[in-house]
Amino acid sequence: MGRVTARRRVSHVTPEDAVTRPETLVVEEPLEIRVNGKPLTVTMRTPGSDVELAQGFLLTEGVIGHRDDLLTVRYCKGAGPDNLNTYNVLDATLAPGVAMPETDITRNFYTTSSCGVCGKASLEAVRTISRYSPGDDASTVKADTLSAMPEQLRAEQKVFASTGGLHGAALFDAEGAVLAVREDVGRHNAVDKVIGWAVEQDRVPLTGTVLLVSGRASFELAQKAVMAGIPVLAAVSAPSSLAVDLASQSGVTLVAFLRGESMNVYTRPDRIKR
Amino acid sequence: MGRVTARRRVSHVTPEDAVTRPETLVVEEPLEIRVNGKPLTVTMRTPGSDVELAQGFLLTEGVIGHRDDLLTVRYCKGAGPDNLNTYNVLDATLAPGVAMPETDITRNFYTTSSCGVCGKASLEAVRTISRYSPGDDASTVKADTLSAMPEQLRAEQKVFASTGGLHGAALFDAEGAVLAVREDVGRHNAVDKVIGWAVEQDRVPLTGTVLLVSGRASFELAQKAVMAGIPVLAAVSAPSSLAVDLASQSGVTLVAFLRGESMNVYTRPDRIKR
Repeated sequence: MGRVTARRRVSHVTPEDAVTRPETLVVEEPLEIRVNGKPLTVTMRTPGSDVELAQGFLLTEGVIGHRDDLLTVRYCKGAGPDNLNTYNVLDATLAPGVAMPETDITRNFYTTSSCGVCGKASLEAVRTISRYSPGDDASTVKADTLSAMPEQLRAEQKVFASTGGLHGAALFDAEGAVLAVREDVGRHNAVDKVIGWAVEQDRVPLTGTVLLVSGRASFELAQKAVMAGIPVLAAVSAPSSLAVDLASQSGVTLVAFLRGESMNVYTRPDRIKR
Repeated sequence: MGRVTARRRVSHVTPEDAVTRPETLVVEEPLEIRVNGKPLTVTMRTPGSDVELAQGFLLTEGVIGHRDDLLTVRYCKGAGPDNLNTYNVLDATLAPGVAMPETDITRNFYTTSSCGVCGKASLEAVRTISRYSPGDDASTVKADTLSAMPEQLRAEQKVFASTGGLHGAALFDAEGAVLAVREDVGRHNAVDKVIGWAVEQDRVPLTGTVLLVSGRASFELAQKAVMAGIPVLAAVSAPSSLAVDLASQSGVTLVAFLRGESMNVYTRPDRIKR
């Protein structure tokens, strides 16, 4: 798996004894994303699918709307000592006419509203910024199709099986076929990677799809679903209040506690067929 | 619990039927942290212990070293419409002589190194920036004291029990007594809150303590332990490679997979007594 996993020595301690042995860990490394040569963000991620990660991040942050807004995404040469490529710096070149994102740390939508920082402003801003309207998506999904998805994700999560250290995200079509599965030490990165895969495939907006995440559903993940035009967001664990509120306002179906044959549907239950 | 939890209607779907019922969710809201009136960051957090969160964040980011570096931390009046206080904007006033942090999005240590962005630069930078040296801490902890901590954390995690949506962080002394427990929708926030509690108590550096987190041990959490001078970081789940590497370089004892009576000790196992 190359740089995705690393070996470290560990002392396994039990009441009986302490045994030193090698163990496989998930790799975490910083990735700096630049736009037209200018640093935009640094995220701690698991190496692999970096170009997808950058593409998904740029889409879910509203910098690009589809593949054609990007000319290239490439690793910066000479980012390391002795001009070595660290493979930890990516530069995205925007197509002519695509506006540079603001890089002020307070740039984002929280502070653009007269409301100051509050949940309501966040919801309104996502609705305003998103180019797609997942609320208009007429797709439906069968409940038993949804129930089968967590096991499909686990089966594809190869690195998690060896390290226990990774979040997974998967895109399915409405019939339950797997479109893409990605893993990362950060759940937002795993989601950006599968969305970046869709950017690459020119498959955005992601109408008629389900985005499944292995953990909880936060506002940030719901935001990414809205920005990519995904009509159904499903999580194995709990949602937050603001994730539910954003899904409600954006017409996204939010499913959580997707376990065994049961699930909680918080918004737009009309898309779930029994 | 006030704003910590919220009620939403949910459709609970099983193969037999779909029942609509109210459910308790964890609240997620943005918090903007300002320093001397200037916006520094926005974090999605669970309301409660906000002043601790800001104090802990400022300490773990290296803006302050102890309580005396802060004059006040207070909610901004008039941050909302009609001059209402949203309780989502905090302004910290630094003591005279304390330098303002850089607010450039690329300010942080990743880009200050000649190495460009790489794990090694991150490790070195944390070591340079931290005012405290947890590696010099001669404390020891008994293995069975550690093994008892996850259950103590769970017992104190009141909101998790009702929502399933929160990460927990706890500080213990070396004898296993609970010093502080905090919960948050974001694990880094839960850690900043307990560290902010210690700032408030003028108990930084946190010599002779154990920081326990309910999930995984990432680089970011190891960094926070180093910045607060905590000698032992323990996690219920897996660590990342960079968390282990930072703990190793900083002399922090990193324990993970702390479950039942067994645990993995990745670094400085000399502090764990059987």
